[in-house]
Amino acid sequence: MKALEEKIIKEGKVLPGHILKVGSFLNQKIDTVFMLSMAEEVERLFSSCTVNKVLTMESSGIAVGFAVAAKLGVPLVFAKKNKSANVSGQTYTAEVHSYTHNTDYVATVASEYLCKDDKVLIVDDFLANGAALNGLISIVSQSGAELVGCAIAIEKGFQGGGDALREQGIRVESLAIVDEMTDDGRITFRNQDK
Amino acid sequence: MKALEEKIIKEGKVLPGHILKVGSFLNQKIDTVFMLSMAEEVERLFSSCTVNKVLTMESSGIAVGFAVAAKLGVPLVFAKKNKSANVSGQTYTAEVHSYTHNTDYVATVASEYLCKDDKVLIVDDFLANGAALNGLISIVSQSGAELVGCAIAIEKGFQGGGDALREQGIRVESLAIVDEMTDDGRITFRNQDK
Repeated sequence: MKALEEKIIKEGKVLPGHILKVGSFLNQKIDTVFMLSMAEEVERLFSSCTVNKVLTMESSGIAVGFAVAAKLGVPLVFAKKNKSANVSGQTYTAEVHSYTHNTDYVATVASEYLCKDDKVLIVDDFLANGAALNGLISIVSQSGAELVGCAIAIEKGFQGGGDALREQGIRVESLAIVDEMTDDGRITFRNQDK
Repeated sequence: MKALEEKIIKEGKVLPGHILKVGSFLNQKIDTVFMLSMAEEVERLFSSCTVNKVLTMESSGIAVGFAVAAKLGVPLVFAKKNKSANVSGQTYTAEVHSYTHNTDYVATVASEYLCKDDKVLIVDDFLANGAALNGLISIVSQSGAELVGCAIAIEKGFQGGGDALREQGIRVESLAIVDEMTDDGRITFRNQDK
């Protein structure tokens, strides 16, 4: 998505440790108008699929997940990173390593919110190593639901998580794929024109 | 908002410890169509104000905050509960006690995302003791921005946080106010007809 690549170039900042900071429009401060246009693009990409639920990970996935689910007119379910007093009963869980925070957490979804008749689109803001995405895919698999595919705002292609999933036959659509990112801030996007 | 009261009665569950579980439409699983109708009601309530930014708390505030911000066509800023690698530079912070999780956390907003020219509407899913809301109000105050008011989906009126803020002259609009909640599941709403 050209407009997203332009926005990353204009507003993104490359920080040490391969961090791409897009807090001015995708995290922390969210450009809701732009995010709805990203959601429209996701809707277009998956228009031939009858998605009936969007699944994402708290907390940075919730805004983009909500935008996509609202465009599709379906519910959004998000995995909590820690079982809280508000998650009761049977759950699906997946252990996930967070490279950003260098911690492990257990992604949890109450089983009443995901079932085998669901056709699920997973949505997230970032895809790097694929740790979070693999956790969500495991949760979908545990529920017996059908995984329609994954829609990601920004994929760090050079970290390989997306391509590993594509090789497994999972449909992963990223609106922008960063294939190279240098410490002096140059960003190279993958050409996705088909 | 009558439709919200009816949805709480129909889908909400009262759990021990004064927990009102609305995970089937407001948290965990989010009814995006219904949430947009709540956002429309918030837009109506604050139609005379020129809000230019919505502020909320991660993570349960993000979906409703996004819906309201998208309806108003303004950015959403959310306070992070922990300073992460992605929050750099100057910040506004507020210490908040979470009664749900019985922990303290430091709500953090990068100061570049909130400034003295902003007219801020705070949005959150729940208001009980007002701990989170007071933290957000403190952050707005630190930034020098104008606080237009607070829009809440569900207020637990019997916990007093909302009324304490109203007594201070802060405009707090809750779409549903639960004034009583018994262990056998009976819920009494405050009559807000004016």
